[in-house]
Amino acid sequence: MQALGRHLIVEYYDCNPKVLDEIELIETAMLEATEEMSATRVAHKFHQFAPQGVSGAVIIEESHLTIHTWPEYGYAAVDFYSCGNKVNPHIGVKVLEKYLQSKNVNVTEMLRGFVNAPHSQTLFADETRGSLVKNID
Amino acid sequence: MQALGRHLIVEYYDCNPKVLDEIELIETAMLEATEEMSATRVAHKFHQFAPQGVSGAVIIEESHLTIHTWPEYGYAAVDFYSCGNKVNPHIGVKVLEKYLQSKNVNVTEMLRGFVNAPHSQTLFADETRGSLVKNID
Repeated sequence: MQALGRHLIVEYYDCNPKVLDEIELIETAMLEATEEMSATRVAHKFHQFAPQGVSGAVIIEESHLTIHTWPEYGYAAVDFYSCGNKVNPHIGVKVLEKYLQSKNVNVTEMLRGFVNAPHSQTLFADETRGSLVKNID
Repeated sequence: MQALGRHLIVEYYDCNPKVLDEIELIETAMLEATEEMSATRVAHKFHQFAPQGVSGAVIIEESHLTIHTWPEYGYAAVDFYSCGNKVNPHIGVKVLEKYLQSKNVNVTEMLRGFVNAPHSQTLFADETRGSLVKNID
């Protein structure tokens, strides 16, 4: 059994509330994260809520990034979901940490899509566990 | 400590591969799920991959829904992330199950965004645990 994707579920606490309410900055941060983690962007959409908060999604060839911000709590929920060994989502986590000025970041990483792969590659070699997922194309 | 959101991470295995590769059907399914679970849609974007597969995101007032399909494995990864007590994401899970004709659905539910709420409401009363999240507005 091999996993098709990895999903990083990231909680950014103690962020700068002003940043969390600026849609242009949030969009810049998310697109920069996409690029820095070597993902290929195919579409994106961001939305400013009233009275406050921003939501957005970036669809990448390798899956997606999403963000939701709560300026009133200094909190943002971000997901980095990717496939293949080209992308390193942990780089994206760091980019967002910098932009949001979060003082408390919590990362949960899970593997998704356990399927019988058509070829018998090893998805996680010991040396790459927790770092990069191997392609199973 | 109270949670701002709930996140359903859903794996649909043994789906109809043809459905998984039809962007219009996937979009219809996702928008119907959004409506049926009483979420308010604010933006959406879907993308057809070559040679196969569809990705998409629906930003809702209460957070988001995303989907990625792998027709070659009969598998789709779907996320239902929502806030408040108006939305019941499990209804969305059922809508997608029907459309994708999945014979094997795996749901993981997690709470996200543990913050000190401004008022001392109870987020999960015993009788609602695992069903509806209380608003903490």
